[in-house]
Amino acid sequence: MHVQVISSVNEACSANFHHKTAVVIDVLRATSTIATALSAGAASIVPAETVMDARSLQRPEDIMAGERFCRKIAGFDLGNSPKDYHADAVKGRRIILTTTNGTRAIHKSTKADSVIAASLLNAAAAAKYALHLQRDVVVLCAGSHDDFAIEDGLCAGLFIEELLKLRVGRFELDDFGTAMHALFRDRAAAIRDTLLQSQSGKRLIKLGLREDIESCSCVNTLDAVPCLSGDSLILRNLS
Amino acid sequence: MHVQVISSVNEACSANFHHKTAVVIDVLRATSTIATALSAGAASIVPAETVMDARSLQRPEDIMAGERFCRKIAGFDLGNSPKDYHADAVKGRRIILTTTNGTRAIHKSTKADSVIAASLLNAAAAAKYALHLQRDVVVLCAGSHDDFAIEDGLCAGLFIEELLKLRVGRFELDDFGTAMHALFRDRAAAIRDTLLQSQSGKRLIKLGLREDIESCSCVNTLDAVPCLSGDSLILRNLS
Repeated sequence: MHVQVISSVNEACSANFHHKTAVVIDVLRATSTIATALSAGAASIVPAETVMDARSLQRPEDIMAGERFCRKIAGFDLGNSPKDYHADAVKGRRIILTTTNGTRAIHKSTKADSVIAASLLNAAAAAKYALHLQRDVVVLCAGSHDDFAIEDGLCAGLFIEELLKLRVGRFELDDFGTAMHALFRDRAAAIRDTLLQSQSGKRLIKLGLREDIESCSCVNTLDAVPCLSGDSLILRNLS
Repeated sequence: MHVQVISSVNEACSANFHHKTAVVIDVLRATSTIATALSAGAASIVPAETVMDARSLQRPEDIMAGERFCRKIAGFDLGNSPKDYHADAVKGRRIILTTTNGTRAIHKSTKADSVIAASLLNAAAAAKYALHLQRDVVVLCAGSHDDFAIEDGLCAGLFIEELLKLRVGRFELDDFGTAMHALFRDRAAAIRDTLLQSQSGKRLIKLGLREDIESCSCVNTLDAVPCLSGDSLILRNLS
């Protein structure tokens, strides 16, 4: 298995994804929210690139969700805080979700054979599922506004650590993946603090959303693997 | 002091450098070679972007140097192996140097107030000099063919470690710089092995240039700080 890690959406091009499994990571907060929502029983999540795209997809029974500048979009039902996606709110419902970086990263990856959404919450489950798919892997860190975001790199490192625990046979990692694995090893005991001190973390704290960082810092608490099927992310679970 | 780290030449734009000190890193091999050559008594080094540029700058007494595809350029005096830049070969001479990534990175940084060349060999001296310049710092990892190269990220992490040892007052680091510092901390005891296992390292080993990797892996063995003055890199030394 060859694993390549891409530092931000800006760095990705279609050619990176052909015949591969794409693992999209946006820890703060899109892929954490997606894993949480599907674990809570949402039927599916449709990632939309723009607010206009989201509105055009809307059916009466859908939940409209997403953020711009970290805030809930005016007129939408939910923002991008994992805590709002509890079973009472989302069970059995289709969610149309648009976020600044995460949903854009998912759209960028659609040339891959499979697209899965990973976060700190479900990295081990995502690694297990990626191994099951038996393709080379490209990990796309969504980043923030075209820049690298350390929380996504940290999660890429955790995902690699989880792959290695599964005793993959042949395993090749590119230089950026090796660096992200080293980042994870250095910070494994300080995941929450790394998120709190990250650029995205500081921005969320200023907006009073510190609780979201706490929700997104938990490691391997979910077995859910959101996987793209057509235009929707649905649940896959090997366990 | 604010320190930003850029992952490869591809990621850099002029706006990154205004009113700042640029620290250019190409561990394998351009900035290691530059620091070695100036330490060995070369008068100056003129970084040229292309072979044609290099030839157009040539004066009869100059040493023509550089590589393409890791090999010495046909008709040139020296390649890009630090070991060839000993005092007998370069003392008192001007060197025109063109390499695939490193000299291009230096040209990309010329909007900065000052441009210095750093490598594992002279990271502590470069940090001391950057602090003396009292500007915010942008570290440009040259990378390899527009991709991140782990040896350059490792050196950026060492440079940050050396800055921190100097007890800088206010110190802000961007997310990528924080990740590269974590990479260095994780690999500080395995610098040489990290270089040997890097993509660039493997390429050099295949070409029989393993000795160059050994030369470039030594940490803080040189006090030389190559600094751009006009079109030439010359020696700065605070000690």
